[in-house]
Amino acid sequence: MIGIAICGYGYWGPNLLRNFMRSDLFSVVGVADRREQKRAIIAKSFPELTIYNDALEAIDDPRVEAVAIATPVAAHYGIAAKALRKGKHVLVEKPFCVSVDEAEDLVSIAENSGATLMVDHTFLFHPAVHKLGEMVKAGALGSISYYDCLRVNLGLFQPDVNVLWDLAPHDLSVIDFLFNEEPIHVQANGYCHLNPQLPDIAYVTLHFPSRMVAHLNLSWMSPVKVRRTAIGGTNKMVVWDDLDRDEPIRIYDSGISIHAQEDRQVIIPGYRIGDVHAPRLPNEEPLANVARHFGRVIRKEENSLMDGKKGLRVVRILEWAQRSLDASLADIGAHYKTEQLHSRHAQVASV
Amino acid sequence: MIGIAICGYGYWGPNLLRNFMRSDLFSVVGVADRREQKRAIIAKSFPELTIYNDALEAIDDPRVEAVAIATPVAAHYGIAAKALRKGKHVLVEKPFCVSVDEAEDLVSIAENSGATLMVDHTFLFHPAVHKLGEMVKAGALGSISYYDCLRVNLGLFQPDVNVLWDLAPHDLSVIDFLFNEEPIHVQANGYCHLNPQLPDIAYVTLHFPSRMVAHLNLSWMSPVKVRRTAIGGTNKMVVWDDLDRDEPIRIYDSGISIHAQEDRQVIIPGYRIGDVHAPRLPNEEPLANVARHFGRVIRKEENSLMDGKKGLRVVRILEWAQRSLDASLADIGAHYKTEQLHSRHAQVASV
Amino acid sequence: MIGIAICGYGYWGPNLLRNFMRSDLFSVVGVADRREQKRAIIAKSFPELTIYNDALEAIDDPRVEAVAIATPVAAHYGIAAKALRKGKHVLVEKPFCVSVDEAEDLVSIAENSGATLMVDHTFLFHPAVHKLGEMVKAGALGSISYYDCLRVNLGLFQPDVNVLWDLAPHDLSVIDFLFNEEPIHVQANGYCHLNPQLPDIAYVTLHFPSRMVAHLNLSWMSPVKVRRTAIGGTNKMVVWDDLDRDEPIRIYDSGISIHAQEDRQVIIPGYRIGDVHAPRLPNEEPLANVARHFGRVIRKEENSLMDGKKGLRVVRILEWAQRSLDASLADIGAHYKTEQLHSRHAQVASV
Amino acid sequence: MIGIAICGYGYWGPNLLRNFMRSDLFSVVGVADRREQKRAIIAKSFPELTIYNDALEAIDDPRVEAVAIATPVAAHYGIAAKALRKGKHVLVEKPFCVSVDEAEDLVSIAENSGATLMVDHTFLFHPAVHKLGEMVKAGALGSISYYDCLRVNLGLFQPDVNVLWDLAPHDLSVIDFLFNEEPIHVQANGYCHLNPQLPDIAYVTLHFPSRMVAHLNLSWMSPVKVRRTAIGGTNKMVVWDDLDRDEPIRIYDSGISIHAQEDRQVIIPGYRIGDVHAPRLPNEEPLANVARHFGRVIRKEENSLMDGKKGLRVVRILEWAQRSLDASLADIGAHYKTEQLHSRHAQVASV
Repeated sequence: MIGIAICGYGYWGPNLLRNFMRSDLFSVVGVADRREQKRAIIAKSFPELTIYNDALEAIDDPRVEAVAIATPVAAHYGIAAKALRKGKHVLVEKPFCVSVDEAEDLVSIAENSGATLMVDHTFLFHPAVHKLGEMVKAGALGSISYYDCLRVNLGLFQPDVNVLWDLAPHDLSVIDFLFNEEPIHVQANGYCHLNPQLPDIAYVTLHFPSRMVAHLNLSWMSPVKVRRTAIGGTNKMVVWDDLDRDEPIRIYDSGISIHAQEDRQVIIPGYRIGDVHAPRLPNEEPLANVARHFGRVIRKEENSLMDGKKGLRVVRILEWAQRSLDASLADIGAHYKTEQLHSRHAQVASV
Repeated sequence: MIGIAICGYGYWGPNLLRNFMRSDLFSVVGVADRREQKRAIIAKSFPELTIYNDALEAIDDPRVEAVAIATPVAAHYGIAAKALRKGKHVLVEKPFCVSVDEAEDLVSIAENSGATLMVDHTFLFHPAVHKLGEMVKAGALGSISYYDCLRVNLGLFQPDVNVLWDLAPHDLSVIDFLFNEEPIHVQANGYCHLNPQLPDIAYVTLHFPSRMVAHLNLSWMSPVKVRRTAIGGTNKMVVWDDLDRDEPIRIYDSGISIHAQEDRQVIIPGYRIGDVHAPRLPNEEPLANVARHFGRVIRKEENSLMDGKKGLRVVRILEWAQRSLDASLADIGAHYKTEQLHSRHAQVASV
Repeated sequence: MIGIAICGYGYWGPNLLRNFMRSDLFSVVGVADRREQKRAIIAKSFPELTIYNDALEAIDDPRVEAVAIATPVAAHYGIAAKALRKGKHVLVEKPFCVSVDEAEDLVSIAENSGATLMVDHTFLFHPAVHKLGEMVKAGALGSISYYDCLRVNLGLFQPDVNVLWDLAPHDLSVIDFLFNEEPIHVQANGYCHLNPQLPDIAYVTLHFPSRMVAHLNLSWMSPVKVRRTAIGGTNKMVVWDDLDRDEPIRIYDSGISIHAQEDRQVIIPGYRIGDVHAPRLPNEEPLANVARHFGRVIRKEENSLMDGKKGLRVVRILEWAQRSLDASLADIGAHYKTEQLHSRHAQVASV
Repeated sequence: MIGIAICGYGYWGPNLLRNFMRSDLFSVVGVADRREQKRAIIAKSFPELTIYNDALEAIDDPRVEAVAIATPVAAHYGIAAKALRKGKHVLVEKPFCVSVDEAEDLVSIAENSGATLMVDHTFLFHPAVHKLGEMVKAGALGSISYYDCLRVNLGLFQPDVNVLWDLAPHDLSVIDFLFNEEPIHVQANGYCHLNPQLPDIAYVTLHFPSRMVAHLNLSWMSPVKVRRTAIGGTNKMVVWDDLDRDEPIRIYDSGISIHAQEDRQVIIPGYRIGDVHAPRLPNEEPLANVARHFGRVIRKEENSLMDGKKGLRVVRILEWAQRSLDASLADIGAHYKTEQLHSRHAQVASV
């Protein structure tokens, strides 16, 4: 069993703790949090665990062979770098870190150390994404035209992450997993309603070499939570509604093909509309699968599906979109004149 | 009773004919269509009507006091100009025409002629839009943060209109009606999957002086038809699903307010989540209301809600978005290298 | 072309008129209604049709070779009998008539006359029922365990029909069509909230030789209209929601099989839960199919799917359920003491 | 803190354990189960708890002041009687017990002992039922015409409970809570598809002094789980869909009123159809509320909402419905001739 410590006990930390406690590959040694109140809660609920005042204490504990990092994003880099340099395996929450520089650095440190570096893109172990992957890989959808996601909710406003860095990593990691290609063009715009330095609405359009267009509609301002992704191909379309417990994946047997029509000198599409099919998906908790995968990768029993390089690819697109968003906000802010819109997505905090 | 002729008997013409036949303000004189096959259908179904070989014949008929124009967009200008110059009242389908120049010209011709020029933005007479207008005007939603529309379907591909000019006029006329402001910033991107000169997917982001952001997700490539508009304010949010027969309007009693929180030096939003309310709407056909409104405006009994100036404002935004879309497509096309992406939205056809 | 007259221009008559006018097998001669107001409406909308003061006038018109009867139920028998005796073909709305005696009589008159007698069980020509029939006949569902229908709405209260005779004929004709068996046991109960002589809620349970149980939940008292039928078999279950425009038929790949389990000395069922499938159905108006079928049966080009004997079988079950409902209401009324509950489902009116 | 033991660790026992462990009114002493496998699971997960070989051992433990009984139904009586006689407080799962005799006996034993006897009708602490109760008590619905429940799923087949005793207690306890009246007439029918001695489908109709009709459609044979209850009154109707996470309660502002209409000599109802309203409900776990209520009733801080007398009323109706179901099954079985349908709902097992 691999000794592991959980670093950060905020929103996601308890989920990590629960799943690593259930895993038969890991033995949870302790939990670290800089907030005294959180440490008191852990101590009461889990008297058998060691409580650390911060992540560095956990890394220094010789029983700790691996850490799962769920702190504010700005602290990811510092903790991960220190752990990797000590040869400890690292699972870090998404977004991986605040810049491409940090991400590249971590990938390099991990390579030198020989320790496992993994980014927790949980959706890659989601039964729906698994099903989508099967269909895409089998070519069932035909040539993909678009990936369109409406991902809105009332936001968990964190001071060091904007809506782009909070929500887009889900889609970017799923796109990377399903289609295995990197965008050739990224555009983003949006607005900051609540905090002039923190966009709370963002729209991102990505173009890919295969001619697929991806569009992400991201918002922290919607009282109705929506998680609707449509993937359209020349043979079929799929709609994935992650909030539909009964039928999260619906496959529309509808394709679009192109016929030349001479007399009008234009291309006329032919549509084929058919049945709808909702495959039954296994009832699994994705994070339990992530924990098992992390353990098996550490034990060299599996190749990593979400190593640092994958995390880096996602951060690279986030940075690209951020630059486009910044330019757009500057342009818009100039029109409003009264304010300096600025998208501060993250600050490096001391660990 | 006002003598009227319907020009163009394609997709929308039969709806115009049916509603003007039922109106007690109009007497339908005849229908014009350049296609012999269409003329045969009309002759068989409505033996009492005059059949014209084209719109100009209809305009020349002295019994015709008004024309409703539902031809391809490129022909709108020529027919409307001719009719107005002869002092005949004009109801023209949306999109009004293919350029701001044409629209300005028609507004000017109408002013000189004294005849009524109206653009058929049917949604302004839709019970749901009426309800939305009541709420917005009463301030029930609070300060509006966003207007977000997903408007996708399998497209009726017309060779002279792209998806932007086909679908965006609905939202642009509704936004103009509800909020009575013009955008300060318009961005658009998209892609041409089926015809390299005709975008079939377009994403438009508009910023308004009030700080409202509007986003339009427009597509001809979706086998699932969606018409979902969310309008979010500081007091309430409304979702309008135009395909929901039972509850097209749903009002979420959820607001977002801002509280300063000193110790974190950031602004923390406070959410209030409450009940959901679906008001009952009257069961009316919007186009019947349009016909009555057109008649009453001609008779000077009502002020026009959708005169040429309104149509011009919509075309101005369409042109703005088109320029942004063209620039984005040129940029993307350069990446693909193999093709010259170009957005030919319209060609002026001979009438 | 067969000359036809529509008798009765209330709720269903206009639908009959429209569909027979469109049919290329029929020529509509005229419409009969005893209400002067209705006759005025017909005369204005369809100046080319003959207007009759009542059904008997229509039958006497030598141009009329067939009649479609959509009068109050109590008048069905008189009109149909007269028409059949004159050798005229008859399509009669459901419920066929008010008693088994009447139904048997009409069947016998039709046999003697040689004219076609058809009962308009429109659902037999509904694409969803057609699909259900295909599945049942192919054995796709396995052995059928139950047919369960929730059929509720705000009622069209007619003084001569109760909720049982108004709504149950739909299900009884569909069951007869799909399963081709007659019940061995029929129970019904319910209540009269609005009129002590007219049940507005009725629950009917039928047992069939095949061990299938059918249950009908019928109500005129529900502001939410529901048309949900579940058919469960040992291999699959189907849910037919007649108000779902997109996916009226949903097939659940779920079966129930039986395994003996020795140690508990009981039979333990094994469930298999699988995918959900929504077949695309053609977009047809069932009544247009009925009109064509009526014409083709008259011309001896097709065998009748809904002749008088089928109508009789449905009326026989209605009478059986009515007797059970009467007994139950008498029993319940005795408990309430203050009133004489009585289920007067129909009175024979003069034609 | 009250020392409590959980008796029976099958389907519901773990929920009881979890909620009593979280309660600050109770201290869980141990868990009893007759199955060695279950005892091993408890020992591993909760090493701090005492494990009993059966409920009697738990009752004999002097630290145990109260027991929560979640064993097979047939064992409820024996365990509860023994515990009450020892002065221990009892929370017993529904159905309370297998007969009115048993229920009356337990009520009497509890009265003599002074200990608290409570039946866990969990729904009484469900936020939706609480909301329904508020509306009914305030008269918001007007005079109630019907309570109609569709409660179907793939069944957890237990050898000693049929579908009536498994599912009807939910509705019967809710009806008792909301309307505080007992039926004057109960009818039931159904069928045994899987086990000739165990009905798996049952339909129950109840008439109440207020003229309300209740109908329960209960089935273990539906792969689609449905929990839909409609309550209709003269002012409003409510639909409670217990599986809808977002809007479980929907209030239809639709009423039915009666107008006499002289010329037709019948009563004509007038409908008023209005808005739909979905109130926001608190997000509470009903069983946590049950645990707190049990503790506060033991401490005499609250009056019991679900004491033995309430449990007895529910069992009395279950027995009544069972007699009607037995009679109906005997009648139907006679038609099938080949088998002896019999509804063995329960056998008294040794404790």
